[in-house]
Amino acid sequence: MAKKNLPLSQVYKLLEPGPVVMVTTARKGRPNIMTMSWLTMMDFEPPLVGCIMGEQSYSFGNLKATKECVINIPTVELAKKVVRVGNTTGSKVDKFKTIGLTPVPAARVKPPLIKECFANFECKVIDSRMTAKYNFFVLEVLKAWIDPSKKNPKTIHHQGNGNFIVDGKRMKLRSMMK
Amino acid sequence: MAKKNLPLSQVYKLLEPGPVVMVTTARKGRPNIMTMSWLTMMDFEPPLVGCIMGEQSYSFGNLKATKECVINIPTVELAKKVVRVGNTTGSKVDKFKTIGLTPVPAARVKPPLIKECFANFECKVIDSRMTAKYNFFVLEVLKAWIDPSKKNPKTIHHQGNGNFIVDGKRMKLRSMMK
Repeated sequence: MAKKNLPLSQVYKLLEPGPVVMVTTARKGRPNIMTMSWLTMMDFEPPLVGCIMGEQSYSFGNLKATKECVINIPTVELAKKVVRVGNTTGSKVDKFKTIGLTPVPAARVKPPLIKECFANFECKVIDSRMTAKYNFFVLEVLKAWIDPSKKNPKTIHHQGNGNFIVDGKRMKLRSMMK
Repeated sequence: MAKKNLPLSQVYKLLEPGPVVMVTTARKGRPNIMTMSWLTMMDFEPPLVGCIMGEQSYSFGNLKATKECVINIPTVELAKKVVRVGNTTGSKVDKFKTIGLTPVPAARVKPPLIKECFANFECKVIDSRMTAKYNFFVLEVLKAWIDPSKKNPKTIHHQGNGNFIVDGKRMKLRSMMK
């Protein structure tokens, strides 16, 4: 894997635009994948991320039990696989095999990175106080990876019911915003 | 204003893709605007939204004191104004006047809608338990408005430092995801 370390201070630039992500978890040596769009940055550095995970999902049980996950960001080329991940439960099948994605060992957590995704953020749960009421977890990104060969990655954004928008034009405006 | 009621069940379709929004607050009859990208859906209906607001901002004080705001979604045509809103503090100026945006009375809350935005969600704070630690608020959307004349609204997504991506192509995939 030709991925390089991404400084933790740069993580927000990839999550703030609201891409659909695939989250990997693992329990008892068995990895799983889910799709997710309900997440937000909560702090710059260390990067904190808030996310909602459906409590009926297999991944929710994994994350609650192990407190570790990886946020993987796919580009539009992976869109069909992203939807298949979302359409399947991992309780009985190994989605890596059935859908055709490649698990790669992470550096700081047990769940694997998804090789085909251009960015991967290894995370641990640091606050579960809103999990019971809202299925909300606060994650800290411990380690971030980026594929430097992807010069203009186009991510996808979900608008409900399988409708997606693909990243379009880029624009630079004079901003004092970080 | 030709805006129509948007059923609350449809709100997530506009926020889930991660657009930059402008949030309006008001205190003692004085409205303010801030830009925001750190927000996520937390539930479908009633729509719950989690958001982070910088504690040094004027809007943070307003939201903490009044527990009301409006989330306004701009399209790319408003990008320069969105950045000017982000570059200015509302502590001394009325950004509606200096930047050229039009406040319109809301139905359920005191902060105004921004007329120029194609969608507006009137919100109240329902949970502040993570505000002290993370500047995080849980909002409930009470009332939602949409401009039905905007057929293909292109929103913008922030990638840090004034770099934005504009919505590109739309794609429909067979999904069981809501």
